[in-house]
Amino acid sequence: MLYSYKYPRPALSVDCVVFGLDDKETLKILLIQRRNSPFKDKWALPGGFMRMDKDESLEDAARRELHEEAGVENIFLEQLYTFGSKNRDPREWVASVAYYALVNLSEHSLRAATDASEAQWFSTTDLPDLAFDHQEIVDKAIERLRNKVRYQPIGFELLPKKFTFSQLQKLYESILGQKLDKRNFLRKFRSMDLLVDLNEVQGEVHHRPAKLYSFNEKKYEKLKEKGFNFEI
Amino acid sequence: MLYSYKYPRPALSVDCVVFGLDDKETLKILLIQRRNSPFKDKWALPGGFMRMDKDESLEDAARRELHEEAGVENIFLEQLYTFGSKNRDPREWVASVAYYALVNLSEHSLRAATDASEAQWFSTTDLPDLAFDHQEIVDKAIERLRNKVRYQPIGFELLPKKFTFSQLQKLYESILGQKLDKRNFLRKFRSMDLLVDLNEVQGEVHHRPAKLYSFNEKKYEKLKEKGFNFEI
Repeated sequence: MLYSYKYPRPALSVDCVVFGLDDKETLKILLIQRRNSPFKDKWALPGGFMRMDKDESLEDAARRELHEEAGVENIFLEQLYTFGSKNRDPREWVASVAYYALVNLSEHSLRAATDASEAQWFSTTDLPDLAFDHQEIVDKAIERLRNKVRYQPIGFELLPKKFTFSQLQKLYESILGQKLDKRNFLRKFRSMDLLVDLNEVQGEVHHRPAKLYSFNEKKYEKLKEKGFNFEI
Repeated sequence: MLYSYKYPRPALSVDCVVFGLDDKETLKILLIQRRNSPFKDKWALPGGFMRMDKDESLEDAARRELHEEAGVENIFLEQLYTFGSKNRDPREWVASVAYYALVNLSEHSLRAATDASEAQWFSTTDLPDLAFDHQEIVDKAIERLRNKVRYQPIGFELLPKKFTFSQLQKLYESILGQKLDKRNFLRKFRSMDLLVDLNEVQGEVHHRPAKLYSFNEKKYEKLKEKGFNFEI
């Protein structure tokens, strides 16, 4: 059975840039090693074709691919950008709607599946050669993440529910790619008053245990309705 | 001649949300009255199908449609979001890549053309019923513009090259949909030092003529390279 149209149409796919933080607060991206050509054995973003026959939306397709290829579910996912130029794929014209996802690695594990032979986390500063135009998609995702953490508290999606102030600062440093002045950073968070002091300290560390905090999501939502701007 | 594929494919279109400011600094959007069904006679965003046969990229398609339907060229254009759910168009499944554009109305005029019967500017606070899911696209574009003017100096795209400080403030108020404290707003722009005092005043006004400024684009680009953050 073939599907025929009066005008040519590109195939429509989704690709996902999944960010995670390792236990040293290094920003990582999830890559899949391709089992088939083109770009056989190269590393690529998890993704695949949108299934019109399943009536799925673009976001449905992105979530399905993440589940099938890496076993991750129920994560923060947002549309990033659509890449549609002619020569992205050597086989045929494929327009790809890219998404980016933020995963809390302390609560999600991953596995490789379907047409991917292996899934692995790579530091954003030390990525292998990527298939297709996936490096361009990764660059766009990092740029978006850098802009967005400054005015939306999405960074907390990458942290465990309970975190130390030092972890929070390292998260921002890892995303922004630069060292931050601790006093200044602390002052900004103090003035927004969005961290809850849990009256707990971290366990099983070799240094003096640091205090644990959580992000006050409810308070943030209320403030936002009144026109409050999160700003780091 | 028909184009046949093994799996069904949605048609791929582009739609453009074109913003302009009128002489009272009211934020407006360019709409086109549809000449054909579906939604005949309804107002819609300028847009149309991507032409694979012309080898055009998505941005090429957006610029071509803006030129054909409204006669605007050489304007600020950025991709907004891709809308791909099944029932957007009553005829068939159409995924649409939306763009938003910023036009300086003192330097661009517009005309209606091709399959649109009329082009007209509407205030964002008083839009007619829109065809398809175009109201959703407009809402997304306004949200993006509101977020982005706070951390990128894109608002200047909407102003004439020479503008008064009052025009600049009204521009921000029109985009953000709220009154701003003049002293605070002035202080923020003064501290960034990105406005050039042209040592000129505006002509032909009934009140006391105000000083004219321009945006120091070159200085901004240099500062940005050094990690400077524009912030309003």
